[in-house]
Amino acid sequence: MKYAGFSRRALIGGAGAGLAVGATAGALGRAVAVPRQPHPVALGAARVDFHGRHQAGITQPQQARVQLAAFDLAPGADRKAVQALLRQWTATVRDLVLGEPGGPHENQIALDAGPCSLTVTLAVGASLFDKTGLTAHRPPQLAPLPAFPQDAIDRSRSDGDLFLQIGADDALVAFHALRMLQQQAAGTAAVRWQAAGFSRTPGATAQPRTARNLMGQVDGTNNPKPTDADFAAKVFATGPDWLAGGSYLVFRRIRMLLDDWEALPTDRQERIVGRRKADGAPLSGGTETTPVDLAKQNPDGSLAVPADAHIRIAAPSANGGAAMLRRGFSYADGTRPDGSPDAGLLFLAFQADPAHGFLPVQRSLSRGDVLTTFLRHEASGLYAVLPGVADGDGYLGQALLEA
Amino acid sequence: MKYAGFSRRALIGGAGAGLAVGATAGALGRAVAVPRQPHPVALGAARVDFHGRHQAGITQPQQARVQLAAFDLAPGADRKAVQALLRQWTATVRDLVLGEPGGPHENQIALDAGPCSLTVTLAVGASLFDKTGLTAHRPPQLAPLPAFPQDAIDRSRSDGDLFLQIGADDALVAFHALRMLQQQAAGTAAVRWQAAGFSRTPGATAQPRTARNLMGQVDGTNNPKPTDADFAAKVFATGPDWLAGGSYLVFRRIRMLLDDWEALPTDRQERIVGRRKADGAPLSGGTETTPVDLAKQNPDGSLAVPADAHIRIAAPSANGGAAMLRRGFSYADGTRPDGSPDAGLLFLAFQADPAHGFLPVQRSLSRGDVLTTFLRHEASGLYAVLPGVADGDGYLGQALLEA
Repeated sequence: MKYAGFSRRALIGGAGAGLAVGATAGALGRAVAVPRQPHPVALGAARVDFHGRHQAGITQPQQARVQLAAFDLAPGADRKAVQALLRQWTATVRDLVLGEPGGPHENQIALDAGPCSLTVTLAVGASLFDKTGLTAHRPPQLAPLPAFPQDAIDRSRSDGDLFLQIGADDALVAFHALRMLQQQAAGTAAVRWQAAGFSRTPGATAQPRTARNLMGQVDGTNNPKPTDADFAAKVFATGPDWLAGGSYLVFRRIRMLLDDWEALPTDRQERIVGRRKADGAPLSGGTETTPVDLAKQNPDGSLAVPADAHIRIAAPSANGGAAMLRRGFSYADGTRPDGSPDAGLLFLAFQADPAHGFLPVQRSLSRGDVLTTFLRHEASGLYAVLPGVADGDGYLGQALLEA
Repeated sequence: MKYAGFSRRALIGGAGAGLAVGATAGALGRAVAVPRQPHPVALGAARVDFHGRHQAGITQPQQARVQLAAFDLAPGADRKAVQALLRQWTATVRDLVLGEPGGPHENQIALDAGPCSLTVTLAVGASLFDKTGLTAHRPPQLAPLPAFPQDAIDRSRSDGDLFLQIGADDALVAFHALRMLQQQAAGTAAVRWQAAGFSRTPGATAQPRTARNLMGQVDGTNNPKPTDADFAAKVFATGPDWLAGGSYLVFRRIRMLLDDWEALPTDRQERIVGRRKADGAPLSGGTETTPVDLAKQNPDGSLAVPADAHIRIAAPSANGGAAMLRRGFSYADGTRPDGSPDAGLLFLAFQADPAHGFLPVQRSLSRGDVLTTFLRHEASGLYAVLPGVADGDGYLGQALLEA
């Protein structure tokens, strides 16, 4: 199916590789002191490759918008039904990330827009394996996360047999992908829970910057970088065979007690985190990217980074080298009955093995981290992120479902 | 208060009027087929004038993100307290729309970003007048909206003494403004309800286009244009004196029955709306901007635009010339207990007088519009949008509160 007179694939083809092209559409006629630019084609035309050893949506920067959705299989849905669904989802995602329509019952919500860096990342939860006769293939890494002392987990907003992370720089494009995939699941799987989040819109800052969370803190500085020699070892799973090139994803819905947090003076917030708020530099000095010097002392002999500072307790050196690639999005879902904001972080972290990533770090944080007292973990998920699909023939999850 | 080493005002000054400037920050190192451009400064640097006869956020195109919040006065808060709050809000908004910090207890959530076309639009509800000894000044246009047949209004998500529409092209910038203003209200007014919505991200489409709603339909084609000779007469109130240059705003939270809607074939959807889905052209022919020909017949003698089509029933000619400036945003708040999407339209319409805007149109729609059967109005508000502030001395609502 193609839209009459409008091929988004053609639009993108015209954009070339990283070059801004024409389509400067004249002034917008806004009564503004500094008007928005004529719409640049670049944000809409940007597309992320679907095919590869790894799925998209892991190493790419957060998009402006995310839709998360977990699905449970419908009663009676068996392995064959899941195969059919994942075949269809794979075909649909292949089209959607090119800016093409989503197949039958296309709702046209994303029409006019380019792919806007759309990525769809599919993962499976531990509960899928028994339901599809694949119990023997469930890796021990998918064992349920332990309860941590401050947890207040709502299981109806946690877990799930299947999990989708849908990111795009345009909210309509992300919603469109969600609806298309949700429709195609009808009869096989239904949404268990759903959450929407946001990060910076490209161009909001003069230069690319590490994003801030809703506490105002630069968040993500210490992430492994794709250029690091040990990046793949930290982020991607090497086995079992069906998961090689995949990853483990920990999801936590972390509400922030913003009324309490914002009442603290900035310097107190900075000692709790261990970084300066304005630029994200560690309190041991330097700039955002300067490695933290945990031994550094102030002139009075006190530790520059306090003993209970978040970055000290979460440091890889304090957690057996634990590392994970965090890719969280903020959420703001209005006001709770007590008047406080229902807002915080949709924490998403990819790792080769939770036992060397989220688990040791969260165990440490839950024991001694002051920041944790301003946070409430309200939902949780642990998923195996399927490997990528190498070319046009395969489908996501094929190696597992045909095992 | 200024941030050390970083003046967002300076950043904006450097951007000039509508010119893209340097700050092209090199490749982003994304593993993408067509990478996003180096962040253009334009989206972030775009700013909307605060001062003027009208408030900002009415005639400007929808931003990518909106936060709506209604407040109720705290028990005991009197007119003087409201004056003080509106003075502070005005001063804060003046700074925020320039990309400056929000004053005391600045939470730094928007730090690094430009103003991103931020607008904050303040309105008052009918309930404010009795509480502040201003009953005699309440205009008859603020009389409660009547109940329409399909209404299912939740009053806890409706109404309110004060109302803020906060729009920006970056979600963090919008949330930051909301938090700053909410903090400043502490003790005087508390959030009654809140909602977040979205529209297109600038640049998502190759050229500026009328936005689509979550039904996939182009929505807003027939809006009055600022260049129309009668634009001001349709949109802005001329009195009472304290409201001259202001407007009336109708808010409706309209949930869309998307599961039902998406099950319809496209041609059925088009006959229900009266426009082609792909390009928004009326079924009487032409392009999106071609005026609809309600008399036009198909070769078989039937009406090209069906008798019960939305655009026929909502047409100004069918409603005594009624007109309003719609500026709605989509919302998608996850899944309802029955599994259907909690998604739809945060309908916002500005008009000189609801009796010649929303009221006659909604009365007609609720009687004979097929589209209405796919919609549920779940929240409602009617507000007087205060006039703008001419210069640096005044504050929003001054003429009313000092009446």
